[in-house]
Amino acid sequence: MANPTSVTACLIIIGNEILSGRTQDTNLNFLAKRLSEIGIQLREARVIPDVADTIITTVNEVRRVFDYVFTTGGIGPTHDDITADSIAGAFGVKLVIDPDARRALEDRIGKENMNEARLRMARVPEGASLVLNKLSAAPGFRMENVFVLAGVPAIAQSMIEWLLPHLTVGAKTLSKTISCNLQEGTIAKELSDIQDRYPSLEIGSYPAWHAGGFKVSLVLRGVDEGLLGAAASEVKKMIEHFDAVAVEE
Amino acid sequence: MANPTSVTACLIIIGNEILSGRTQDTNLNFLAKRLSEIGIQLREARVIPDVADTIITTVNEVRRVFDYVFTTGGIGPTHDDITADSIAGAFGVKLVIDPDARRALEDRIGKENMNEARLRMARVPEGASLVLNKLSAAPGFRMENVFVLAGVPAIAQSMIEWLLPHLTVGAKTLSKTISCNLQEGTIAKELSDIQDRYPSLEIGSYPAWHAGGFKVSLVLRGVDEGLLGAAASEVKKMIEHFDAVAVEE
Repeated sequence: MANPTSVTACLIIIGNEILSGRTQDTNLNFLAKRLSEIGIQLREARVIPDVADTIITTVNEVRRVFDYVFTTGGIGPTHDDITADSIAGAFGVKLVIDPDARRALEDRIGKENMNEARLRMARVPEGASLVLNKLSAAPGFRMENVFVLAGVPAIAQSMIEWLLPHLTVGAKTLSKTISCNLQEGTIAKELSDIQDRYPSLEIGSYPAWHAGGFKVSLVLRGVDEGLLGAAASEVKKMIEHFDAVAVEE
Repeated sequence: MANPTSVTACLIIIGNEILSGRTQDTNLNFLAKRLSEIGIQLREARVIPDVADTIITTVNEVRRVFDYVFTTGGIGPTHDDITADSIAGAFGVKLVIDPDARRALEDRIGKENMNEARLRMARVPEGASLVLNKLSAAPGFRMENVFVLAGVPAIAQSMIEWLLPHLTVGAKTLSKTISCNLQEGTIAKELSDIQDRYPSLEIGSYPAWHAGGFKVSLVLRGVDEGLLGAAASEVKKMIEHFDAVAVEE
């Protein structure tokens, strides 16, 4: 499914609280949707602990593979916030106090309340540019193709909305979803035949059990609207051929 | 934080639907909690697309690093269910029809309804053992230290509950959470000092904004109950020293 204009991304979720089960991550889902809407494909995500070596190794591995890398978590003022240090380590540069970040923090909390811990939030790797945080002033930052964002969902989302216009985008992935109450095992062969006829599309089959009973959602994704419409018509016909009702969602 | 009896795990979430934002994953959170409760540390998770090469490379990378690897997704009857094939590829073995899996499926759906697509769900890599699925009969499987589970949360959870007693466990990580309404920047130095005095514990600071206002949760984790209690007492005293109320959750 080569697409010459595809732009790819990877998300690194930095946080012991996700891996311990204390916190349910929601940043992946938000970022995935927003990137998809503007024409960037989230191709991988990793959840890693607050361990500097792991952060450095992971960032250096994925920033060479994907067009964009996003990290969430670990940019606050406490001892367990080691993301900025680790990103500097990954790029082999020093951490410096960013004057604009310092000013934004001082404006928010009052200069008299600045202390060593809060000043940590103004530190960025040398050469980084800021990602604005309208909610709590402590900024994220961009270092080459790596965007370092907060972990708290409201702040992460605000940062994502701010940075999206700064990204280079590729072709938008369009999607159509058609659902029915047939079993996957009933339609599998015919669905596979449709996939074979449309190799540039990605057809996924997702079963779900609700209070109302069983449902399978057939999701067609691709960048060509015409092909998508044609394949969706075939899927609907196939469902009706089995005497079931096809519902476009 | 070396723990001679630690047992580690990695989760691989296989699914385009997670990376596109269509589906919010909940399997990571469930697995993380259940593993933590029995004495296994989830140390990493990866979300990867339904691409055979990516699945093979990822499985082969992490199964050598972690004691246990779990995968979710891609074990149904449709063309996009390629996990079993990919796991066989990762281990360099053939896929074979497991007679017990075939029987379980036939018992559930009726022998007369078996077809080529449904028979795909009875295929396991040669040498694998089954992971039972009490909800829909299609089993997962275990290949050495890799457990291959369904993606649908209810089925994944049922499989996880079934397999937990088969795992070797390490020391249980205990945790205490103490919250207060102080700013992180206020307590960061003192909290860091406590962390320094208890290097075998992991102290995390998690801010949150609720309708009721601001809260920071200080989470202490470790395997030694005595140390955990002592550190928690210090955290409470520190909070009270700042004239705030410490709430143990």
